[in-house]
Amino acid sequence: MEKITASIITIGDELLIGQVIDTNSLWIAKELNKIGVWLQRRVAVGDVWNDIWNCLDEENKRSDIILITGGLGPTADDITKPLLCKYFNGNMIVNEDALANVKSIFENFLKKPLLETNLKQSEVPDVCTVIQNARGTAPGMWFERHEKIFVSMPGVPYEMEGMMINYVLPELQQKFVMPHIGHRTLLTAGIGESFLAERIKDFEEALPVNFKLAYLPNYGMLRLRLTATGNNSSMIENELEKQFATLQFLVHDVMVVNEDLPLEAVIGRLLKTKNKTLATAESCTGGYIAHLITSVAGSSDYFTGSVVSYDNAIKQNVLHVDTKILQTAGAVSEDTIIQMLKGILNLMKTSYAIAVSGIMGPGGGTAEKPVGTVWIAVGNNEKIETKKFFFRFDREKNIELTAVSALNMLRIFILDCD
Amino acid sequence: MEKITASIITIGDELLIGQVIDTNSLWIAKELNKIGVWLQRRVAVGDVWNDIWNCLDEENKRSDIILITGGLGPTADDITKPLLCKYFNGNMIVNEDALANVKSIFENFLKKPLLETNLKQSEVPDVCTVIQNARGTAPGMWFERHEKIFVSMPGVPYEMEGMMINYVLPELQQKFVMPHIGHRTLLTAGIGESFLAERIKDFEEALPVNFKLAYLPNYGMLRLRLTATGNNSSMIENELEKQFATLQFLVHDVMVVNEDLPLEAVIGRLLKTKNKTLATAESCTGGYIAHLITSVAGSSDYFTGSVVSYDNAIKQNVLHVDTKILQTAGAVSEDTIIQMLKGILNLMKTSYAIAVSGIMGPGGGTAEKPVGTVWIAVGNNEKIETKKFFFRFDREKNIELTAVSALNMLRIFILDCD
Repeated sequence: MEKITASIITIGDELLIGQVIDTNSLWIAKELNKIGVWLQRRVAVGDVWNDIWNCLDEENKRSDIILITGGLGPTADDITKPLLCKYFNGNMIVNEDALANVKSIFENFLKKPLLETNLKQSEVPDVCTVIQNARGTAPGMWFERHEKIFVSMPGVPYEMEGMMINYVLPELQQKFVMPHIGHRTLLTAGIGESFLAERIKDFEEALPVNFKLAYLPNYGMLRLRLTATGNNSSMIENELEKQFATLQFLVHDVMVVNEDLPLEAVIGRLLKTKNKTLATAESCTGGYIAHLITSVAGSSDYFTGSVVSYDNAIKQNVLHVDTKILQTAGAVSEDTIIQMLKGILNLMKTSYAIAVSGIMGPGGGTAEKPVGTVWIAVGNNEKIETKKFFFRFDREKNIELTAVSALNMLRIFILDCD
Repeated sequence: MEKITASIITIGDELLIGQVIDTNSLWIAKELNKIGVWLQRRVAVGDVWNDIWNCLDEENKRSDIILITGGLGPTADDITKPLLCKYFNGNMIVNEDALANVKSIFENFLKKPLLETNLKQSEVPDVCTVIQNARGTAPGMWFERHEKIFVSMPGVPYEMEGMMINYVLPELQQKFVMPHIGHRTLLTAGIGESFLAERIKDFEEALPVNFKLAYLPNYGMLRLRLTATGNNSSMIENELEKQFATLQFLVHDVMVVNEDLPLEAVIGRLLKTKNKTLATAESCTGGYIAHLITSVAGSSDYFTGSVVSYDNAIKQNVLHVDTKILQTAGAVSEDTIIQMLKGILNLMKTSYAIAVSGIMGPGGGTAEKPVGTVWIAVGNNEKIETKKFFFRFDREKNIELTAVSALNMLRIFILDCD
């Protein structure tokens, strides 16, 4: 079976001057991968006629499927539609369904009068199949030429995702017989990339040719992803299962979870299984740990809440940290986080708690406690564990690393409680 | 003056299966833009020899500067270095400075014995200028051929950023005489893209040819970016200032700020100027509003903290919401958020506060209060304003929209207090 290949083209000047992050490519890449399409390339180009045209020519030579997002808005900088119309030698016509959709959105949802520019959104080239937009005004377009498929969708993520799920992905699965691509991912903590690579060198070298192992480091954690491709899906999945079992055995002591799950979901599952609860007392992370925990659906089952005690007065009045300790040891100290932890356990009556206090930068550092100094405590009513960290990054990364470190300390603490 | 053009090539399978988001391109794009380099294209390719090779060939034809990240790690899936060595007809040699750097990192920082694979990281092609890595083990490489510059850097953002700031950007500014690219951005709220476009149509059409206007919608807010390019930087900046003044006048009633600032930074500045303080009581946002506020450096000057009252017991015990109200009106109700707001103002003694409660999904919705129902309150000790919202997205977007809506309500409230 031939590999079915794809390219993604994202269009918009904002992608080239660093003003917005391209989440569409990420989302589309993930979905293509699931259905067995081999994404070869992602390209971002500006709102420039020749650049878009050349890009279409180049990806046309390379891939079976070309997915395009962006440039379909009602404003003058959006040139994708007329360009595609010309590229496929079409003429613009009004699509009645798209027109009805635009009218209905304005009448029922926006409750505003229609503008000329909005009406233009219902015009499409007469050489495409129109993909109706259930989540916005700009219709999508599906073109076919010489066995190649071109799909143009809006750049608004929610609208693009709707079209992909409801129309594009099912249509692609109908058009092509896809090979099977299987993945298994595991998450490790506390071991560097080169040390892990050294440990599993023999395993990696002995992998069959249709297998691939990738190292994905991120914030002191490392994911290993094992990928296998082939025609017989059950055979592939079987082989993958076997190799993955060996890999898990080799890294068992540093493995956090044998799935592609973020740490906060792993902890959520652990708490749910054990029927335990959690709260956080956060100073330097400013609520970010609570945000990570509550980004998991169903977290209200085990997370009661958090006190973000950014100001020392809140540490004293709400968490009952000793004024003397704050004055002598300071807010970023072992004594303070122990009292913060006891305070939050007492206030929230949870099984476990996390407390953090540190200096995230760029300001606030001293010679004794430079930017990046962080104290973390995890514990329950019986036992408390503390650890001092020193992170050497910028504010955003220091916050992220503090949160990940605290969650991982808690995970180990919960497991040790058994 | 000729435009100096650039392409970014990011390398790694993980970028094509949707496992990681490409933040490097965003960061590089922003920095290139600042120094007047015209980024034409961003490409992501997998760890595949021919794909990378072809990509180098294609971008070589297109751009003056080709910046490459990724594929320099110590593991087998990293093939960028041998490929570049071959592409530029070089031989691998040990670079003594890079070797000393690797050794020093292992001795002083990691405190672990060196592995063979780590030593290999100090090998580089003899046809490049080595860029030392002050933040990691993999050195960067600078190649020049036929007036084109190729730079290869690690995929770890922090390491790449260090090389760009310390070496690549200053070198590029020395090599090329850059045209001036100027931008002005303003943020609006409460008006749709097509309505704004209609309002400023005449302005847009009358813009000089070296000007460009872009619409950047995001979560119910819309940024307008005005760009001008030219050789004489002071003339360009002058013209830009004039046009931007007109634009501001045209949208003054819906403008949040006349800079490219996130809402949380706008509020931070407002509070700082007025010498006021803020706290939040968050249910459904789970600390995300506090996280946004504290992501701004210096926020400890005006933000005291937050109570994340995910559990109703915390709403009662910490924020003193009436048990009866929770039982009758429910946690997602106007009565509850008013009491949450009063509770947090009382607890944190701040000038202003925000309180939110809602159902973010996917679970928890009822016929009467479907997923996406949110109550938001903002206020001070004199006055409270409440508003009910209904968001129709997924959990992550609903949380984001709730936070942005709450911050914008607060902004207007503070301005109205004057």
